[in-house]
Amino acid sequence: MTDTTDRASLLEDPRQAAMRALIYLVWAGDGSSSQTFESVQDIASGLNADMAKQAAAWLDAEHPPTILDLHYLRKSIRADMAQSSQDNISKEIQTQVWDLTGLDLRRLQNTLAGTRPAGTHTPLAWTAKEKQQRDALCALIEGEGHAIWQEIASILQEDSFRYLENPSVEEHRAQVLTWVQLLAKKDVAARFFNDDFSEVDLTGMVQSFAALSTFDLSLVVKFGVQFGLFGGSTFFLGTERHHQRLLPSIVRGELLGGFAMTESGHGSDVKSIETTATFDAEKDGFILHSPTRSSWKEWIGNAARDGQAMTVFAQLQIGEEHYGVHAFHVPIRDADGAVLDGIRIEDCGYKMGLNGVDNGRIAFEHVFVPRDALLDRYAQVDAQGTYTSDIRSEDARFFTMLGTLVGGRLSVAFGALTAARTALLIAIHYGLGRRQFGPENTEDCVIMDYIAHQERLIPPLAQGVMLHITMNDLLQRFEQHEGQDRRELEGITAGMKAHCTWYAVHTTQECRECCGGQGYLMTNRIAQIRRDVDVFATFEGDNVVLMNLFAKNELSGYARAFQQDLALSMLRQLRSLAEKNIVEKNPVLTGKTDEKHLRSSDYHVRAMKLRADSLLSSAARRIKKRTDDGMDPFHAFSEIGDHIQALAKARIEYEIVKTTAAWMDELEPGDNRDVLEKCRQLTALDFLYQSRTFYLENGFMDSGKARAIRKVRLALIRELREHAFVLSSALTYAPEALGSPIGTAINSST
Amino acid sequence: MTDTTDRASLLEDPRQAAMRALIYLVWAGDGSSSQTFESVQDIASGLNADMAKQAAAWLDAEHPPTILDLHYLRKSIRADMAQSSQDNISKEIQTQVWDLTGLDLRRLQNTLAGTRPAGTHTPLAWTAKEKQQRDALCALIEGEGHAIWQEIASILQEDSFRYLENPSVEEHRAQVLTWVQLLAKKDVAARFFNDDFSEVDLTGMVQSFAALSTFDLSLVVKFGVQFGLFGGSTFFLGTERHHQRLLPSIVRGELLGGFAMTESGHGSDVKSIETTATFDAEKDGFILHSPTRSSWKEWIGNAARDGQAMTVFAQLQIGEEHYGVHAFHVPIRDADGAVLDGIRIEDCGYKMGLNGVDNGRIAFEHVFVPRDALLDRYAQVDAQGTYTSDIRSEDARFFTMLGTLVGGRLSVAFGALTAARTALLIAIHYGLGRRQFGPENTEDCVIMDYIAHQERLIPPLAQGVMLHITMNDLLQRFEQHEGQDRRELEGITAGMKAHCTWYAVHTTQECRECCGGQGYLMTNRIAQIRRDVDVFATFEGDNVVLMNLFAKNELSGYARAFQQDLALSMLRQLRSLAEKNIVEKNPVLTGKTDEKHLRSSDYHVRAMKLRADSLLSSAARRIKKRTDDGMDPFHAFSEIGDHIQALAKARIEYEIVKTTAAWMDELEPGDNRDVLEKCRQLTALDFLYQSRTFYLENGFMDSGKARAIRKVRLALIRELREHAFVLSSALTYAPEALGSPIGTAINSST
Repeated sequence: MTDTTDRASLLEDPRQAAMRALIYLVWAGDGSSSQTFESVQDIASGLNADMAKQAAAWLDAEHPPTILDLHYLRKSIRADMAQSSQDNISKEIQTQVWDLTGLDLRRLQNTLAGTRPAGTHTPLAWTAKEKQQRDALCALIEGEGHAIWQEIASILQEDSFRYLENPSVEEHRAQVLTWVQLLAKKDVAARFFNDDFSEVDLTGMVQSFAALSTFDLSLVVKFGVQFGLFGGSTFFLGTERHHQRLLPSIVRGELLGGFAMTESGHGSDVKSIETTATFDAEKDGFILHSPTRSSWKEWIGNAARDGQAMTVFAQLQIGEEHYGVHAFHVPIRDADGAVLDGIRIEDCGYKMGLNGVDNGRIAFEHVFVPRDALLDRYAQVDAQGTYTSDIRSEDARFFTMLGTLVGGRLSVAFGALTAARTALLIAIHYGLGRRQFGPENTEDCVIMDYIAHQERLIPPLAQGVMLHITMNDLLQRFEQHEGQDRRELEGITAGMKAHCTWYAVHTTQECRECCGGQGYLMTNRIAQIRRDVDVFATFEGDNVVLMNLFAKNELSGYARAFQQDLALSMLRQLRSLAEKNIVEKNPVLTGKTDEKHLRSSDYHVRAMKLRADSLLSSAARRIKKRTDDGMDPFHAFSEIGDHIQALAKARIEYEIVKTTAAWMDELEPGDNRDVLEKCRQLTALDFLYQSRTFYLENGFMDSGKARAIRKVRLALIRELREHAFVLSSALTYAPEALGSPIGTAINSST
Repeated sequence: MTDTTDRASLLEDPRQAAMRALIYLVWAGDGSSSQTFESVQDIASGLNADMAKQAAAWLDAEHPPTILDLHYLRKSIRADMAQSSQDNISKEIQTQVWDLTGLDLRRLQNTLAGTRPAGTHTPLAWTAKEKQQRDALCALIEGEGHAIWQEIASILQEDSFRYLENPSVEEHRAQVLTWVQLLAKKDVAARFFNDDFSEVDLTGMVQSFAALSTFDLSLVVKFGVQFGLFGGSTFFLGTERHHQRLLPSIVRGELLGGFAMTESGHGSDVKSIETTATFDAEKDGFILHSPTRSSWKEWIGNAARDGQAMTVFAQLQIGEEHYGVHAFHVPIRDADGAVLDGIRIEDCGYKMGLNGVDNGRIAFEHVFVPRDALLDRYAQVDAQGTYTSDIRSEDARFFTMLGTLVGGRLSVAFGALTAARTALLIAIHYGLGRRQFGPENTEDCVIMDYIAHQERLIPPLAQGVMLHITMNDLLQRFEQHEGQDRRELEGITAGMKAHCTWYAVHTTQECRECCGGQGYLMTNRIAQIRRDVDVFATFEGDNVVLMNLFAKNELSGYARAFQQDLALSMLRQLRSLAEKNIVEKNPVLTGKTDEKHLRSSDYHVRAMKLRADSLLSSAARRIKKRTDDGMDPFHAFSEIGDHIQALAKARIEYEIVKTTAAWMDELEPGDNRDVLEKCRQLTALDFLYQSRTFYLENGFMDSGKARAIRKVRLALIRELREHAFVLSSALTYAPEALGSPIGTAINSST
């Protein structure tokens, strides 16, 4: 609160436009150049006397500007931009700033858009080496997706992508629609398909979704509904005529639509949906109808406000015959946005988060659609009402149809993961800047140096990187094995969706708490991410149901492998387990505590496999015991629900440990590999540590070994603390995408 | 979608006003009478022919009204009320309804206010026995607080207490202020004090806060800021002249204020705050000043919009002398709401939740306050600037001052707990009504019957009840032991605050996920509670910091008990631990698995004590080792941060298990005691089960016993599943407070 006159003068002085921008960058900047402060002081000292004095008042490190000072500074910069044509000013300032500091002014504009400026905070400074390391880590972690991530990053840096401050639901929805259409204009969606719409690039679609998730989850969900669900279902379930007629306008964001599968009474249990599609030979089409309240289509994205058409799932009836669930292309609004006759729509209303997405409920009152509305890739109906399909069994047809939609689950898993990594970036940069308490008569400690704080943020940081690598690998496997292993891959996808989204919920929660009150303010982004990501654990399949599905898949694979003979398979399994027990319960092994062993991927993979296998065979045994006693399979499975969840968890953790161990084997030696290897070790040991009761109870580990694991795990946390700054930043685009200047906007806490 | 003509006619028919209300109660009611449906059908059949036909169309159980039908019905009832004087209609309908069904129409009005009506849902029916049991359980669980809970309940049932639907921040703040002032008018706050403001009823204050938490957390926090923090600090830190001058208008809600302690740079570390209060002999007062950005008062409730004065904490300086942190009564706005000279205020802005509270930041620019602004209970300054205090040490003075504010932590713990129990009520009622999947060819299962679902909701349900009992007990102990044990009680309060608020965060999260998409909609309350309660883990002391504080307290008590001689104390402790090990590691005991033993409070208390003691002595040992090696105590403590957190957790769980075991001993035998005893057993076994690695690793339990505990724990979950309906409802007022008619508004899910 010194030099207020000089400070005020600078705000008014028309000659100081560039200096205003520079000062703002110094105090509220993203800290990407450690040289900024000194170089701006140099520049200021070269100005004429009164200008120099004004600038000096703002550049006094002992009396940094208050948050309110920065507020007025920001207002003044906005006025600069408004007064002349934005391009001019921006070019002028931009050139000056660039020349002087090498800073990109687009960042400034993002910073100015709806964010709270920072006060007295030591910005985290990048060394050239760190910056280089970050870029290298990005490339390694993002792998084949790196180019897409970079491209999305460059689009998101444009002026149009700025956050609104505390928007109303209506403003938020309008903004998100504009963003989706902007992305469409830039062919972000069109490039997923080849020219004649005969092929789709699943990986590109999922990677784009993931990359966008650094920015805003409402955008990502609307993007996913429009292109992934609406476009994807049209592509996968429709045939050439649907592709030609619909896809060009869908990918350009002109025909807006959604995916109407879930019903009020039937969420996870899609097979039981009640909406009917009855063949009408006379009119040559189908009558869609919602017979009950519980058959309303529920939670449908793009329904409440923007959608013009929907891919609707309904029970197909021809005469007296039922053919099960099929998909139809159904218009719901006309070109002017008026709801069509027979369509009833309700707005789901205000939600915990994702308020930029217009979820709604839809019902049909005897709505007619022509025969070619049937998306007929897997089943056809001719004018006489004759039903044909290459897939005989109704069940097989149903699962084939659903199977084509696996992109949704992959996207949701990857998007949630990315959002959590973005929250970690903010929380860790905050933890590296925020000081509190400390030994007597010394400077306060940076809170990232508290063990309890590291314990909360470093394991998820390491795991986030490993999950990214696992997701990349899963996408590659889908590309390579479209055929035989597909069912297994779909199971793993269900498991990964549950794992990644729960990881995201828990991680963003830790981030929220680790930023104290600052984490609770919407402007600092973490609270927004936390609210938005919560429902990711529910949609595209409830996590508990997906874990059941994954476990069931594993159990049936297990039985299949032994020609459906569960009894025989169990005998064999028991024998192999007995042998394993002899090996694993070897006192030398169960008590082995040397660090090399505990850090080795060989140990991790074997130990994780042991748990997964053991829980699998015991689950099979328990189910068999119950069905042998006359219990129906449904109840037998349900009665051991806690075991099933534990099995799915063990199995997916094994998958992650195995995949990342193999990936690491291919990596060039060097500093970056060393850091990533530590992440791998910590992730594996964290899984082992959290599930150590299994090993202790079953004699695969003695208590000395459990203690040794805890020790090495803690050592790894401390080792990775040293890399926390660079590792958390290794996320293409995120540094610029945060809205809040990294680690500076959130500079104080309750 | 049948009988649409008859249904429509009923909406228009002026004779059917009462029937409209009745029908609404049937379909969207709170299910509090199982007789409703049949009795309304009876009434309808007695009407004249066309009226009867209209009513029958609405009372067809096979074709229940859709959500949209109910929407129009609600509109029509609103019109009824608007057309004539509300009193008349309301009295007329009310009498009819009461005569016919015994239902209280005030509930209908609450239901009509801003809630989403329900569709096809089997309302949960109460039997007379269940209702009686619920009331009895409420009385038992709420104990001495029961009368206060009932009184708050009757106030909250008034028309004024209705939720706004999706309010803007400004509307929300205005609504919450109105509520607070209404409560003040009803003397809810005034009765905390005796007539001459010389005594305060801490228990009454905390219980009122807890009871209000069933309704709305923004209200509760604003209420707590105004009466607990502003009123409480004036009472505890001020003297008679402050009491007489300020308290009457504070408790009437006329003088609005807050509690300005936290600063941007100093959240947990209050002793380091930077705001100064410099004695000015000439003007006979103090100059308050905020010297830096980090000295802004941060997150201050009532600051951004409504507060006229604040209790401000600042470093007292007289001449060259520093006297540490003291509290001052400081006006910040005039009667018209204009901010006073020298005061700077910023709005904290939009938050993750609690948007009905106007948090702000405050800074002082050389603001003068007269000498009697000093709240001078513990220290006085005379006109010559002579400082006097009965408490010699600055540290002791500081902790005595903070100690008086323990009511805040008790309130926050109890309020979060109550909010979580409210969320559990909604989630469990939903789980009992929602069906999904099921064995082939049978009706779908109620989701509460899935083991995985029970696993998520039943243990927190049982624990919630036990925590309520523990909080009651803690309040009683404060009443009884104002003197000597106070420091210990403050420690336990810190631990309970952390435990209860984390419990609330995790429990409401489970509730959110267990209601699927419906849990994500704000109208169904859980999402609102989830968002609001999140910051409870941060304010009134960050949980991690509080757990540290609690553990430190225990450690110093431990040392004190042995005359500060840590080495000696450790020797003794080691000896006693060795003896304990001999007993506890007795193979008969470590392997004892009979159910009676595993369910006995004797085993639970001993086992929990063992863990708490053992972690305490090992923490002391580890700290001593480090300080002996020359490490400063701060780092020695910080380096074992994970151990300290585990110790605090073990200690607070022991406290809960011990308290509830003793409470249970006093309880009359009977059905209600049996249910509560099951809650106690499950809570204790859940703590043991979650921490079983400790017992396994240290040889206090063999793996057979761990498995037996898991089994009994699961058995208890199933036993309590049978009582879930009544147990979850055992919360005075909540059934009527939910806004969403219980278990009916949330009748469908993704």
